[in-house]
Amino acid sequence: MITRDDCASMDAADPLAHLRDAFDLPSDTIYLDGNSLGALPRVTPARLAKVIEAEWGQELIRSWNSNQWIDYPTRIGERIARLVGAAPGQVISTDSVSNNLFKLLAAGLALRPDRTTILSVTDNFPTDLYIAQGLQRLLGTERCNVRAVAAEDLQTALLDDVAIVMLTEVNFRTGERFDMKAWTDRAHASGALILWDLSHSAGAMPISLDACDVDMAVGCGYKFLNGGPGAPAFLYAAKRLHDDLHQPLSGWLGHARPFDFTADYEPAPGILRFASGTPSILAMAALDCGLEVFEGLNLGSLRHKSLAQGDLLIELIESREALTTLKLASPREHVKRGSQVCFRHEGAYAMCQALIADGVIGDFREPDILRFGLAPLYLRHVDIFDAVEKLEAIAATGRWREPVYNERGKVT
Amino acid sequence: MITRDDCASMDAADPLAHLRDAFDLPSDTIYLDGNSLGALPRVTPARLAKVIEAEWGQELIRSWNSNQWIDYPTRIGERIARLVGAAPGQVISTDSVSNNLFKLLAAGLALRPDRTTILSVTDNFPTDLYIAQGLQRLLGTERCNVRAVAAEDLQTALLDDVAIVMLTEVNFRTGERFDMKAWTDRAHASGALILWDLSHSAGAMPISLDACDVDMAVGCGYKFLNGGPGAPAFLYAAKRLHDDLHQPLSGWLGHARPFDFTADYEPAPGILRFASGTPSILAMAALDCGLEVFEGLNLGSLRHKSLAQGDLLIELIESREALTTLKLASPREHVKRGSQVCFRHEGAYAMCQALIADGVIGDFREPDILRFGLAPLYLRHVDIFDAVEKLEAIAATGRWREPVYNERGKVT
Repeated sequence: MITRDDCASMDAADPLAHLRDAFDLPSDTIYLDGNSLGALPRVTPARLAKVIEAEWGQELIRSWNSNQWIDYPTRIGERIARLVGAAPGQVISTDSVSNNLFKLLAAGLALRPDRTTILSVTDNFPTDLYIAQGLQRLLGTERCNVRAVAAEDLQTALLDDVAIVMLTEVNFRTGERFDMKAWTDRAHASGALILWDLSHSAGAMPISLDACDVDMAVGCGYKFLNGGPGAPAFLYAAKRLHDDLHQPLSGWLGHARPFDFTADYEPAPGILRFASGTPSILAMAALDCGLEVFEGLNLGSLRHKSLAQGDLLIELIESREALTTLKLASPREHVKRGSQVCFRHEGAYAMCQALIADGVIGDFREPDILRFGLAPLYLRHVDIFDAVEKLEAIAATGRWREPVYNERGKVT
Repeated sequence: MITRDDCASMDAADPLAHLRDAFDLPSDTIYLDGNSLGALPRVTPARLAKVIEAEWGQELIRSWNSNQWIDYPTRIGERIARLVGAAPGQVISTDSVSNNLFKLLAAGLALRPDRTTILSVTDNFPTDLYIAQGLQRLLGTERCNVRAVAAEDLQTALLDDVAIVMLTEVNFRTGERFDMKAWTDRAHASGALILWDLSHSAGAMPISLDACDVDMAVGCGYKFLNGGPGAPAFLYAAKRLHDDLHQPLSGWLGHARPFDFTADYEPAPGILRFASGTPSILAMAALDCGLEVFEGLNLGSLRHKSLAQGDLLIELIESREALTTLKLASPREHVKRGSQVCFRHEGAYAMCQALIADGVIGDFREPDILRFGLAPLYLRHVDIFDAVEKLEAIAATGRWREPVYNERGKVT
């Protein structure tokens, strides 16, 4: 049996343990939801105060130049590029994941004019499917069809009408991970482009967009990148495609010369053409702070810790008598698992609420998933031990059956 | 001749003078660019510190409920609704002006299936034209055509192929103001919908979207609303159209039940269907602070002050011998003028740079426009006097001809 002392020893031996000090975490909470909203980096409050009071308040409009506000989207893009295996000039931070998906799906479809299908999986994160459906409705089914199938049917559905394969590397519910290289190769072999959503992987594991020959990708700034609630998203487009990709949300900051204020749109060369309107500088500055924590960090070490913590969580839960009714919903195999571990249980919603009441924040996901996010930058092994102790108590006493934990209609 | 004492008397008699105290302005600057980036409200730094440190840092993901983050877009929407003459349930704060234009143009076009033209003016703010061009490129000219004409040709160009008339109420260069009621009526008489961009009018004058029977509108959060650099924009859609408007950026937060995570998009009833991805809560909170200043404010009084300050600026510049080479580019007539006054001069760029060096921040706009924004919430009459004094000195000495002021390539 693994004891709390064993976990404390793991923390003592953890080469990344010091990174927890880079975050301001509540002392009375075990946070297993960093894959939904990342924690607050310690540098963020002072940086935002400076941006607000000095840069905005005192320098006002001049800060677009004097404090390089105008360069935030590409400067942050380069910081993210290192985390996703992209050579410079291919990542920009802008808009939301949803809107970036729209840009890339629309632009990508035009590169395969004899094909009309966007292929995805039915358990992709809903916004990915919704955006594809929005494009289908706008263009009409003669030009755009969304085909969503079960993951096991993906290869069969990859027919020669598929223009774009749109996949999320790590499934938001189960934490199951697609093989990026294999699926990129399969998409290309069929003549399709590939678009990866990295929302649940960027910042938690190494990603190799260039090496996998990926065409397009998007990702989230507020999960493992710790950019703050609703942080700007990011968008990757392989350099070889830039000149041919014409995204439809062609706002002024994607123009080749925005401050000429000419009447006709001319896309900027390179990744800047994926910019649209004016970005929130407060949101950009906060995301920049989240990315500072990753400077110099070895993502392989981060992944190693994340997987070890996942194994620990699985082993602890499966070893407790009161928790045998929880069934692992995430892959056991490392290569197939993201940085979260999920269990199915009929009382998942209520158990999640009871855990929150006890200071352990995880997530419930429809219909019966208890989801534990493992943010290896700040999660300790003892946190996992303590969380399982509390979960065991909730299950053993049947406390989760109390009506208060079963009232639905909440967001988390 | 108007003296500085006269201006000081105007300030003493100004019933809105106290509102300046609601802003944190640099003491060494005269700020005539509030129509480009509004000033910092005094309440913003503490509010953002609370959102960052307590709501994000301590309550983490729970704040989506406990601090009502999830309601920011509609709550802020209702605050803006009062400023633009909209009954409740018709305004949402979301995304950028550019992306909101895309949503409404795409959704609006579908309401006029036998028409294909988006009609606008060539000197509309470029992003409005660029977004319409992006939609045209995406849909093809058989379904969408952008027709941009000179303002004087607008009526002639309002043919029976026009689906949407897209106009900005106040021109970003000249400050010329369209008659909202008249052009809305003309659009409707021709069978077209109307879409107003309120970026240069919202927060500077009364607007009556409902009373004018407007169909759709967008506006900017970072100009006269003082929401901070790149603040979220807003979107208005008349309630009578909600059920029929299907916007294509159909991200998860516009879904009827986003937290059910179902695979098929179903638009939320009402204005929420215009939401897309997850909004930046830091940006939303800052915009909310900007809107606090407007609580209880009579917009008629604000407009009265703005026009009087415009008259003052015109009179002062036109009365100075050294400034006779500046030609008024804004309408003199009140009803035709927004909250800015512009002059044409061959050396507009250099004069603007020389003014900035002297602590007077205005704007240059291509090709030869010197633009002075009048933000009546915090601008004093003596500021206008002092700015003209400095401008006169720059012109009288010919100092603006110095090379340092003529180096191009800057953003402001």
